[in-house]
Amino acid sequence: MRPSKRAPDEMRKVTLERGVARYAEGSCLVRFGETHVFCTASLEDRAPGWLRGQGRGWVTAEYSMLPRATAERTRREVNAGKPSGRTQEIQRLIGRSLRAVIDLPALGERQISIDCDVLQADGGTRTAAITGAWVALHDCIAWMRARSIINTHPLKDHVAAVSCGVVQGAPVLDLDYAEDSTAETDANFVLTGSGGIVEVQGTAEGKPFSDEELLELLRLARVGANGLVALQKQAVGQ
Amino acid sequence: MRPSKRAPDEMRKVTLERGVARYAEGSCLVRFGETHVFCTASLEDRAPGWLRGQGRGWVTAEYSMLPRATAERTRREVNAGKPSGRTQEIQRLIGRSLRAVIDLPALGERQISIDCDVLQADGGTRTAAITGAWVALHDCIAWMRARSIINTHPLKDHVAAVSCGVVQGAPVLDLDYAEDSTAETDANFVLTGSGGIVEVQGTAEGKPFSDEELLELLRLARVGANGLVALQKQAVGQ
Amino acid sequence: MRPSKRAPDEMRKVTLERGVARYAEGSCLVRFGETHVFCTASLEDRAPGWLRGQGRGWVTAEYSMLPRATAERTRREVNAGKPSGRTQEIQRLIGRSLRAVIDLPALGERQISIDCDVLQADGGTRTAAITGAWVALHDCIAWMRARSIINTHPLKDHVAAVSCGVVQGAPVLDLDYAEDSTAETDANFVLTGSGGIVEVQGTAEGKPFSDEELLELLRLARVGANGLVALQKQAVGQ
Amino acid sequence: MRPSKRAPDEMRKVTLERGVARYAEGSCLVRFGETHVFCTASLEDRAPGWLRGQGRGWVTAEYSMLPRATAERTRREVNAGKPSGRTQEIQRLIGRSLRAVIDLPALGERQISIDCDVLQADGGTRTAAITGAWVALHDCIAWMRARSIINTHPLKDHVAAVSCGVVQGAPVLDLDYAEDSTAETDANFVLTGSGGIVEVQGTAEGKPFSDEELLELLRLARVGANGLVALQKQAVGQ
Amino acid sequence: MRPSKRAPDEMRKVTLERGVARYAEGSCLVRFGETHVFCTASLEDRAPGWLRGQGRGWVTAEYSMLPRATAERTRREVNAGKPSGRTQEIQRLIGRSLRAVIDLPALGERQISIDCDVLQADGGTRTAAITGAWVALHDCIAWMRARSIINTHPLKDHVAAVSCGVVQGAPVLDLDYAEDSTAETDANFVLTGSGGIVEVQGTAEGKPFSDEELLELLRLARVGANGLVALQKQAVGQ
Amino acid sequence: MRPSKRAPDEMRKVTLERGVARYAEGSCLVRFGETHVFCTASLEDRAPGWLRGQGRGWVTAEYSMLPRATAERTRREVNAGKPSGRTQEIQRLIGRSLRAVIDLPALGERQISIDCDVLQADGGTRTAAITGAWVALHDCIAWMRARSIINTHPLKDHVAAVSCGVVQGAPVLDLDYAEDSTAETDANFVLTGSGGIVEVQGTAEGKPFSDEELLELLRLARVGANGLVALQKQAVGQ
Repeated sequence: MRPSKRAPDEMRKVTLERGVARYAEGSCLVRFGETHVFCTASLEDRAPGWLRGQGRGWVTAEYSMLPRATAERTRREVNAGKPSGRTQEIQRLIGRSLRAVIDLPALGERQISIDCDVLQADGGTRTAAITGAWVALHDCIAWMRARSIINTHPLKDHVAAVSCGVVQGAPVLDLDYAEDSTAETDANFVLTGSGGIVEVQGTAEGKPFSDEELLELLRLARVGANGLVALQKQAVGQ
Repeated sequence: MRPSKRAPDEMRKVTLERGVARYAEGSCLVRFGETHVFCTASLEDRAPGWLRGQGRGWVTAEYSMLPRATAERTRREVNAGKPSGRTQEIQRLIGRSLRAVIDLPALGERQISIDCDVLQADGGTRTAAITGAWVALHDCIAWMRARSIINTHPLKDHVAAVSCGVVQGAPVLDLDYAEDSTAETDANFVLTGSGGIVEVQGTAEGKPFSDEELLELLRLARVGANGLVALQKQAVGQ
Repeated sequence: MRPSKRAPDEMRKVTLERGVARYAEGSCLVRFGETHVFCTASLEDRAPGWLRGQGRGWVTAEYSMLPRATAERTRREVNAGKPSGRTQEIQRLIGRSLRAVIDLPALGERQISIDCDVLQADGGTRTAAITGAWVALHDCIAWMRARSIINTHPLKDHVAAVSCGVVQGAPVLDLDYAEDSTAETDANFVLTGSGGIVEVQGTAEGKPFSDEELLELLRLARVGANGLVALQKQAVGQ
Repeated sequence: MRPSKRAPDEMRKVTLERGVARYAEGSCLVRFGETHVFCTASLEDRAPGWLRGQGRGWVTAEYSMLPRATAERTRREVNAGKPSGRTQEIQRLIGRSLRAVIDLPALGERQISIDCDVLQADGGTRTAAITGAWVALHDCIAWMRARSIINTHPLKDHVAAVSCGVVQGAPVLDLDYAEDSTAETDANFVLTGSGGIVEVQGTAEGKPFSDEELLELLRLARVGANGLVALQKQAVGQ
Repeated sequence: MRPSKRAPDEMRKVTLERGVARYAEGSCLVRFGETHVFCTASLEDRAPGWLRGQGRGWVTAEYSMLPRATAERTRREVNAGKPSGRTQEIQRLIGRSLRAVIDLPALGERQISIDCDVLQADGGTRTAAITGAWVALHDCIAWMRARSIINTHPLKDHVAAVSCGVVQGAPVLDLDYAEDSTAETDANFVLTGSGGIVEVQGTAEGKPFSDEELLELLRLARVGANGLVALQKQAVGQ
Repeated sequence: MRPSKRAPDEMRKVTLERGVARYAEGSCLVRFGETHVFCTASLEDRAPGWLRGQGRGWVTAEYSMLPRATAERTRREVNAGKPSGRTQEIQRLIGRSLRAVIDLPALGERQISIDCDVLQADGGTRTAAITGAWVALHDCIAWMRARSIINTHPLKDHVAAVSCGVVQGAPVLDLDYAEDSTAETDANFVLTGSGGIVEVQGTAEGKPFSDEELLELLRLARVGANGLVALQKQAVGQ
């Protein structure tokens, strides 16, 4: 039995609330149970320096946690002078995941910056962030289309992410913090609406895992991602 | 006429929402119109190093803005490697303001860290932060009292803050961004529930101001602060 | 009785020594009693990047203390990797104070950098710095006029600063370190030659202060600032 | 046909040269074709601060590239003031991989620091680093056992890593730089001697990949890792 | 003919003014012509951490230039986040030079920090700094002896420094900035009162120099250093 | 008798291995006994920013030690956020030494970056680095000439470096770590093939040294440098 009484393939309650940031071109407050991430998409009317003159745009992401998102207060990274290794891994992952479903040349020489700020953390912040960031990105693009900044549809597919893991010997979907901190294996999957794999990151926290476990975690991830994509569609009114 | 149609001595709509952070000992989402600040109070069971062994506690504060709290996205300070001068000024002000109404020896050798994260900024973020931080601090102390960590009442008074300014020649209360960016004089006042002045910071942005203008701004500030203290009382159920 | 035997409205002995830096366009060694600040003004023949093409100039300031300006040696900020919050507050204040009395468009697209380095500190370093910086700025502008770099008079007024405070219940002018470290209220005032207020910063160190106390501190500040402006006039030979 | 004429499941020539660092407790120069990584293991006779008093040891890793390991010179990270996100990801991966096969309590309160410095880079530096680091770690432990610092066998298994990818539609093993820079999918696998999976990191660089592709990459990884483990055994004389 | 009309073996006018810093245990304002360095010695009643428990003291030095010490304003190093390579070289040199003439065990477990802040720079700042620092150190030790903190004479000898160089083919003593910036060879010598060499640093700025030139520069340095030591003796009243 | 049984004027075994870095335009692994330095020369087709438009090129150098080059592991400087003072001194010295023998205008507006990474350190790393760097620089220039990037011979002379010192009262050549750590005087000499002195850096570690000792160390340095230049000639096939 999971601490949250969920079935092995049951997600936490997920909500996607759009338009939470008055000034951003797109925004979404995503909740995976008690994990809450505030996502905004900001359009900048020029590409980053290293990309200038190539006729393409870029999507990048930054990630941060409020100090008291967690059970114990964590120190602000600005006071350490630099983002931690964990933060950098996560923001690179979010950026890669979104770029996998967007047509960068169709953006023109512009950049969309996604900011994912964790207001509350109960496990799975990076997967919630990716799932919510897609909605913010979608709305930013709708904003651009409404103003005829672009006339194409650069967003080619949905992208959503879930964590799965082996907890006390059993593969389960969408780990909360209680499960995450005791899991033997922890894996994050980023999947597209059409079922392609964008990213798999599986790590043995305790003992190494087998091919069969990896496949079962992938199966659970598909269950979760399908549900998330359905919620994204509902949120953006498709 | 003010851009927001308010009377010269009229605050924006203010709300104080308690208990917004699941893990913090105290928390408050404060809204001064479209300015929204997420405040948490975190109890740490020991005093900062430089205060050890003196039988006193400490209250400190940190302040940050989400990158897209503003009309234009602003760069995260972690990427500059350090908090800006403005951020440091504000967090020092918040800390001083709260310490003015708390009995530090009564806290024992403990520290309460206040985090003020601006989700949305339309002027007056520092004054909203101080006003909301008091509620978070109040609830943190109630949490400590409920658990018999302390048995005294270290919080001696309310503290609230407002900005006032001279805009197009007229003194007005609680500037929003449209007013703040064109004010000739900008002043922040931190006042206690019993009417004492904790901090006055008045700056001539354009031409210098007179004693009479300073006094009129102080009068407006008292109007605003009285209203804020009333809302604090209502919020914490006094 | 004050530790220095001064009357409540009596400044320390103030001297303004011009031309102390061989290479600077303007310079002044200002002494408020045992507080000594070495001020230089450096002309740079272009505006800062963010101001280019706007037909205006800029005045900025930096502040630092020699490690052994104080009773105990303090660590150099370069070894901490960044200016402290206190340093940033002070240098922002000096810059704002000087910009309040200068006609920036009349400077043309140039920047004047004011450096205030505290050789010895006995309280009131920021107010001494502002007072001496005005002289250095004045001489820098005279230097420019002598070379026909500008032909107008961009310096519109004097600016001078003093600290006042409530010490052992009594309002006093121009606190030295012994008073500053025990004051119940500490306030800095930046005033122009024509009597306008550029900046008021009053802080309750102990218990909150009243309107009456604020007004009395302001009155003392006017006494002090008038004397400082008279010394500035004498120093620059008006 | 691969640029290097290798069969799809063919590794580059791999060599493991032990004892390359005179002072280190263990060392290995690992070559995967033209990728050369200099690995050392350094024993420190106390655990890191956050682990003190828990009766366990730790294995950590750092990774760096010489500036001219690559076709174009890259800037030293020390001059940027911090390790890049990529460097941090890699050194965290190396550390996790080694900790998966070592019995930390059996180390006692000691730390082994693994340094992986890339002398030459032609793709696959992180996988070569893990593979060579295992040899350095093995020899460090042998050094400890020879001096009776420990009497147990804390190294429970081999660990080795390979990259696989989909290049021009075909799954291939052990990508060199020419393949890596054009791969549609890039995946790194860390596997143990007994066949368990320690880490899977698969990323779609171009279009998303399918379950079948993931499985084929895993199969190739097993071919490669088996070969690497055989070479490790030969190198350490088992 | 030298720009300053000096003879080849003629120093600039040198003055050593003691007691310039009210709070420091020792201080000296040294002037080599238009090069002015403000030196203080600060006693700290414990040795640096890495030296604790060894029964010895330490002398260390820091060096900095005010931004407008030079003809063009230079950026403060605190804004670059770290001391420059040049600054670090100089402060290491000053520290080594002073430690060469002090009996560290006789200091007890204490540290003396020498701060050398250049108020005005016209070449030879490091040599002036060493020469003035010796006076500050001397007075710090006298201060300690006067208070019976130590009863021995830890200062074993004088130390003074001069720069020499080959300018337009001619070896000259004590280069000012005009000479320093065009010298073919630049050499700094640190010599003791009894004639020993503490440090020689000779650098060919243009073409390499010969043994004969090195010897002639050393001869000039002895002329200069003898004069400086005589001035030190006069300054401290020996 | 020296710890290594060498005669006072005997170098350690020196080897210069060219072509060790596949991608660099020039490279050399230099060994002075157990001190091993990996040197590369990287051509960049433009001058550094501060030199643009002056028709000259530049040669610069960077220096680093692998963490376990030494008997005890040393912390990576990237984790301290900046190069140490020692590192900066050494890389400035290497750069100056190479620039002394190269015709910078003949390079055109290009930069050659020399990287010296110490794989193993047994004393004398900076002198080995300079000696090996000359070979890497030579080969980089040969590479440029072979491709007709330049047609002149910008390398005007050889440059090589050795350390000498007074150990237990006796002047000796080419100190290893055992000698270096106990030397009373330590001196580094950088000499050209034609016998000119590029740099002399002599430091009294214990008691000051005399003119006679300096001359004897210079004599030994010439013995060593002549041998090193002969090896350089042999290595590059002159």
